[in-house]
Amino acid sequence: MPLPLAGLVVLDLTHVLAGPFASMTLADLGARIIKVERPGTGDDTRTFPPFKNGKSAYFAAINHGKASIALDLKADSDRATFERLVARADVLLENFRPGVMERLDYGWETLHRKHPRLIYGAVSGFGHTGPDARRPSYDMVAQARGGVMSITGEADRDPVRVGASIGDIAAGMYLTQGVLAALYDRQRTDTGRKIDISMLDCQLAILEHAIAIASVTGKAPAPSGARHPSIAPFETFHASDGLFVIAAGNDVLFEKLCVALSLPIADDPRFGSNADRVENVRLLKRLIEAVTLDQTRAHWIAKLTAAGIPNAPIQSVDDVMRDPQIVARNMVVDVLDRNGRQAFKAAGNPIKMTDAEDRTARAPAPDLDGNRGEILRWLDGD
Amino acid sequence: MPLPLAGLVVLDLTHVLAGPFASMTLADLGARIIKVERPGTGDDTRTFPPFKNGKSAYFAAINHGKASIALDLKADSDRATFERLVARADVLLENFRPGVMERLDYGWETLHRKHPRLIYGAVSGFGHTGPDARRPSYDMVAQARGGVMSITGEADRDPVRVGASIGDIAAGMYLTQGVLAALYDRQRTDTGRKIDISMLDCQLAILEHAIAIASVTGKAPAPSGARHPSIAPFETFHASDGLFVIAAGNDVLFEKLCVALSLPIADDPRFGSNADRVENVRLLKRLIEAVTLDQTRAHWIAKLTAAGIPNAPIQSVDDVMRDPQIVARNMVVDVLDRNGRQAFKAAGNPIKMTDAEDRTARAPAPDLDGNRGEILRWLDGD
Repeated sequence: MPLPLAGLVVLDLTHVLAGPFASMTLADLGARIIKVERPGTGDDTRTFPPFKNGKSAYFAAINHGKASIALDLKADSDRATFERLVARADVLLENFRPGVMERLDYGWETLHRKHPRLIYGAVSGFGHTGPDARRPSYDMVAQARGGVMSITGEADRDPVRVGASIGDIAAGMYLTQGVLAALYDRQRTDTGRKIDISMLDCQLAILEHAIAIASVTGKAPAPSGARHPSIAPFETFHASDGLFVIAAGNDVLFEKLCVALSLPIADDPRFGSNADRVENVRLLKRLIEAVTLDQTRAHWIAKLTAAGIPNAPIQSVDDVMRDPQIVARNMVVDVLDRNGRQAFKAAGNPIKMTDAEDRTARAPAPDLDGNRGEILRWLDGD
Repeated sequence: MPLPLAGLVVLDLTHVLAGPFASMTLADLGARIIKVERPGTGDDTRTFPPFKNGKSAYFAAINHGKASIALDLKADSDRATFERLVARADVLLENFRPGVMERLDYGWETLHRKHPRLIYGAVSGFGHTGPDARRPSYDMVAQARGGVMSITGEADRDPVRVGASIGDIAAGMYLTQGVLAALYDRQRTDTGRKIDISMLDCQLAILEHAIAIASVTGKAPAPSGARHPSIAPFETFHASDGLFVIAAGNDVLFEKLCVALSLPIADDPRFGSNADRVENVRLLKRLIEAVTLDQTRAHWIAKLTAAGIPNAPIQSVDDVMRDPQIVARNMVVDVLDRNGRQAFKAAGNPIKMTDAEDRTARAPAPDLDGNRGEILRWLDGD
């Protein structure tokens, strides 16, 4: 069977991360992505390190399999080409500051009038409405203003940012969801919609329980380091050679843990219930670590796994890429060069589906304007 | 116009967070969610604090607007009801350990044979394939093993977990994307698919650039605290009363910043280019903070905003809920009780669309089995 979005054409004006992440997922689901870049420099991420053979690995990790055409949307001849592309597109994506597309005369209202079936997906720092609609944003600005930094970090130190760019990526994922919902709906209504995604909105959307806590208790949740806020023991511990997580979420698991660690504290009233263990969590951590520091991570992981106690190593990204479960799931794929050789690595598609080929390689990330010829031939009626 | 997924029926067997987060989004897009819970206790999150009037705010923040029926999937009469529900469902969602549904004789193969149009969405710790398929997982286990913790935290201290449950939530968002793509595709093929989402897979998928860095340089990226890894100044700074982010991403912005701070270092060769500033980032931070500590956050934010320098406060979750941009975007909504009164708060739907009402309130979170009567009447042919 073809991939779910086979045959769909996405005209992608987005650059950097949020938008390109969304179109990457659409490509993994089978859509054809035509990436419109500004002439000369193209997408900023073409200049992001690290480089390999002169090409950005960052750009490749996100833009593999897309086709690139460079267009100056203020120049008449390029505008003519662009308008031919819009006429053939199912979806248009943009992440300009709100107002930019309107000034180009390519805003939602104009495009919808001419192409009522076009789905228009916009992602921006703050959305297309509201007092801050026209302000620029960045991933760290979204993480800071959006609340996730305030709950990430050690309890008595300054907050830290999330190491993954979730300010951009959560927005990219919500853009994808909006586009897919609009595509489904269009088959019934034969009409497109504009989707308006704000990076800031998406930060709040992923804070689920923190909103519940803040609104009921009147207090904002605080960061909890590497520890679950309300279950113990459920945090990271040092082995002789690295960190790992023990998640002993109930009394039964705690007793099993005490046996596995030869730590005879299961009957100690200070640790009798989860509530007791949470109250004495720092003492509990020190007692557990007094034992775990003596052996390697691998030793404890094997022992706890055999006893049925959930656990995990804190893996670095290169560890994860070699993790047998990740490898078995085809979650690290090759991005090829134009000669079919492996040039870069990228994350695989996590949306595994029956009857949908889960490819082990990806087509190259495009050179700037590298697909102009084939795109123009396609417009001319291949 | 109706919401995009109006008329769609989702039979939701999921519990806790990843699955219910996905069905919450589907509900916000217009689908009808029938939440099947185990009798007696129901979804574990009904017991998660904080509580208000005896009801869990956590449960309410994620399960608003869903209908609940309690079914024991091993009891004949409940199985008969369940099978009538499956026959009417467009989508089934489950997050049991791989194998559980098969043992109940409700696995994908069986259901697909009887209901070839049914879309079967599964989310689990490690996926339905691979050596660890049957292992349990938790959000922190996914965050630890999946790599994001290794890049979150201060550079020379132990890693921390991301304060939002992105182990669960990224998986929930990918499940939503898979379901929506399958729904779109079903209109062409008239056939359902099984979607198999792994929490671990999804952690790698959101690490985009970290994979690029690890694969090209051979070194895993390290945590970078509250600082952008390759741009400076682009981090958090202390004002007299709190933390805020300055994102001066290029030479022009840096010069404007020096003017705004009355800090005459724009011509200092140690800070001449971004590369110089990154090399001397700790000195740069101390110099900037020497100035910013003298005034409030509000003072600096106003000054920098007027100068066009991107910035943001580090907001706590309750600050975010009151943020004027968030309020203008309807991103904090009321969850009502059965008398139509505001009982809880929840995040709004970030997927804003034209012609789709963006409601300011949500229907109540259901009582356990609270909608049995109306569900059975619907099955009988309303």
